[in-house]
Amino acid sequence: MTEERQQRIASVLSKRQVNITVVLDNVFDPHNISAVMRSCDAIGIQEIYVLTNMVPKHKKWGFRSSRSASKWLDVHQFTDTQKCFEQVRSRYSTILTTHLSSNAVSLYNLDLTRSVALVFGNEQYGLSEEVRALADGNFVIPQVGMIQSLNISVACAVTLYEVFRQKTVAGHYDLPQLKSEHCNELSNQWGLYDKNLF
Amino acid sequence: MTEERQQRIASVLSKRQVNITVVLDNVFDPHNISAVMRSCDAIGIQEIYVLTNMVPKHKKWGFRSSRSASKWLDVHQFTDTQKCFEQVRSRYSTILTTHLSSNAVSLYNLDLTRSVALVFGNEQYGLSEEVRALADGNFVIPQVGMIQSLNISVACAVTLYEVFRQKTVAGHYDLPQLKSEHCNELSNQWGLYDKNLF
Repeated sequence: MTEERQQRIASVLSKRQVNITVVLDNVFDPHNISAVMRSCDAIGIQEIYVLTNMVPKHKKWGFRSSRSASKWLDVHQFTDTQKCFEQVRSRYSTILTTHLSSNAVSLYNLDLTRSVALVFGNEQYGLSEEVRALADGNFVIPQVGMIQSLNISVACAVTLYEVFRQKTVAGHYDLPQLKSEHCNELSNQWGLYDKNLF
Repeated sequence: MTEERQQRIASVLSKRQVNITVVLDNVFDPHNISAVMRSCDAIGIQEIYVLTNMVPKHKKWGFRSSRSASKWLDVHQFTDTQKCFEQVRSRYSTILTTHLSSNAVSLYNLDLTRSVALVFGNEQYGLSEEVRALADGNFVIPQVGMIQSLNISVACAVTLYEVFRQKTVAGHYDLPQLKSEHCNELSNQWGLYDKNLF
């Protein structure tokens, strides 16, 4: 590995966040999952949760493609809702869903600097009742247009960049957050990928 | 038209903005254009510019689909760069592009409450030299990940929601902005669409 490449990996790892994750509840379209992963990588999310108990389990999201972010993330796949959320709950203080409901608050009124898991649902059916019941709150992305929905990858990106904006102001990117053990492990793993491809 | 429908249209029109637009410079994929249109509709952009002099001219972006936002926008199509930007320049004070370059500023350091046209380029080639030369400035969406690019529809949505956030704080959605003539014209036109479909 060249020194430049080593520095690049170290720089990215120094920005990875420990108190923010994304949970995808039965998102169907692999393109949407790929787009979500790219947005996660872009703002420094290291681990995400992919729950599939109502849609087929996903394969490796084009791991070999230079544009696939799955190789830069720890992706936890679950087929059991309770087990998935047990793990999420053990690692994150607050679980927030996004679906239309009367008790939803605006994305821009959330404190996204705290420890939080953000849950996005299926393109057509949204979130299951079971998942809603496991969450602590619900938010919406405000909209003033005729069409009252956003594509899931767009909704996720808008949400994650509000996370990024708030965390930047709060200084969360100023100091490394990953444990050194995890960091070394990722550094070794990423170093093995062909630098000409990725 | 039911009263409810009428009120809904009036409410959306009262939030439409006059000093913000999007220019798509040879964006190739119709899905990306559709996604951009939905984001525009969502934050209250009324008119957009679609320039195609290096990719085939687009058809009507699934006008009849309930998810197509093209019917809620004034879409100006151009095949000539200079003519396109002449019109943009005559209506907006500042033209900002987004591409990687040394003089780029962060999205979050822009004042997006002023009169501005935001230009996004082709998925593969970005923006042409000609278009770059016509712009007043260039911005980037900050990223801290291994993959250093975002999908164009994601990049546009993230940018537009920062516009939305800033404009909300500045009170731009508190008072109607469209001229009453334009508003009535759109109201009549939108009223003709089948409310069961859209």
